[in-house]
Amino acid sequence: MREEFRADLTEVSRLLVTMAEAVRAAMRKATTALLTADLSAAEMVITSDAEVDQIYGQVEAKVADMLARQAPVASDLRTVITALHVSADLERMGDLAEHVAKTAQRRHPSPAVPAELRAVFQQMAEVADHMAEKITTVLGNPDADLAAELEKDDDTMDDLERDLFKVLLDDDWPYGAETAIDGALLGRFYERYADHAVNAGEQIVYMVTGEPTADPV
Amino acid sequence: MREEFRADLTEVSRLLVTMAEAVRAAMRKATTALLTADLSAAEMVITSDAEVDQIYGQVEAKVADMLARQAPVASDLRTVITALHVSADLERMGDLAEHVAKTAQRRHPSPAVPAELRAVFQQMAEVADHMAEKITTVLGNPDADLAAELEKDDDTMDDLERDLFKVLLDDDWPYGAETAIDGALLGRFYERYADHAVNAGEQIVYMVTGEPTADPV
Repeated sequence: MREEFRADLTEVSRLLVTMAEAVRAAMRKATTALLTADLSAAEMVITSDAEVDQIYGQVEAKVADMLARQAPVASDLRTVITALHVSADLERMGDLAEHVAKTAQRRHPSPAVPAELRAVFQQMAEVADHMAEKITTVLGNPDADLAAELEKDDDTMDDLERDLFKVLLDDDWPYGAETAIDGALLGRFYERYADHAVNAGEQIVYMVTGEPTADPV
Repeated sequence: MREEFRADLTEVSRLLVTMAEAVRAAMRKATTALLTADLSAAEMVITSDAEVDQIYGQVEAKVADMLARQAPVASDLRTVITALHVSADLERMGDLAEHVAKTAQRRHPSPAVPAELRAVFQQMAEVADHMAEKITTVLGNPDADLAAELEKDDDTMDDLERDLFKVLLDDDWPYGAETAIDGALLGRFYERYADHAVNAGEQIVYMVTGEPTADPV
């Protein structure tokens, strides 16, 4: 039984790492689509989100199966519940990458982001990528210190979102309401992507240390 | 053991109904704050979100305890996993009501929503309220048909969001970028609130019928 549980856990962990890699790749490609008005990149992100959703379903089924057949307790139970939460966060990160890609698709062949905003979105994308990389690492090799770093990364993301809004709300903003709205919503997609990475990180801290997590952001 | 499980389940169900009532009341009050520039209503919503978060923690702890001590299987296990998902959706609905309240607070004493948009936000709030009411009902008395209705309600919400964007993106929009951005983000808060109600509804359908849910929206 014990051995079977370990094998199941390894399988869940493998699925979560695959999800994390996929949503990291999705946001990278969505950013390319956004900043270079690359329609085929946007379409690839949109198509491949179904794969993330499918792995999410596999994690949920596997977790339900483990709970039913093996009735884990203590830290084993914690690990299994964590997997459920983390997979939900990763699934949502995939959706948010898809939202970025859909914005690029909708504005194609125009770029969705005017020149003044390219730098800040490039930076937001870099922070997002860094956070997704950290989640991938701690999922493969749980490390509470590394997972806890994600909160600081998220502060950087929040600062960047404030910088973005300063530009959007400047009296001299020359692009009208539609581009301002797209900019604000895109900013929110990156910021929420980072929030879900923080939530996933906190879940992993809980899994490793048994300390209850803060409220989700 | 069986009797204890039933008692625990009744307790979880009671907590979920309390959460659903709280996030329904929160969005009602947030809408009042938004449409009447009522600062004290906004502040009440912001303060009371901590209570929702606290009940969420109670549900999580109770579920972990039930899984550890009672090792439920089959439909009992389904019910317990559902409670975990539904509470996460309700927690997020509370956050979204808080976001609406914070927008009202930030723009106070000005109204955050110009006259042209009041009607559409009023309608979005009514749909949101209707959906939160349905969730409360089906949590107290699981009913797959009623829960499944939430998807149609959500279509109405999506239509209203499209109406909102038509106004925001009209060439004659007279209010500038900041009010357009607030309008778009507020629209998204109501729309996401409705999405989470749909997710919660689908979870309840799964609990009642055992049919796997669609991907979360």
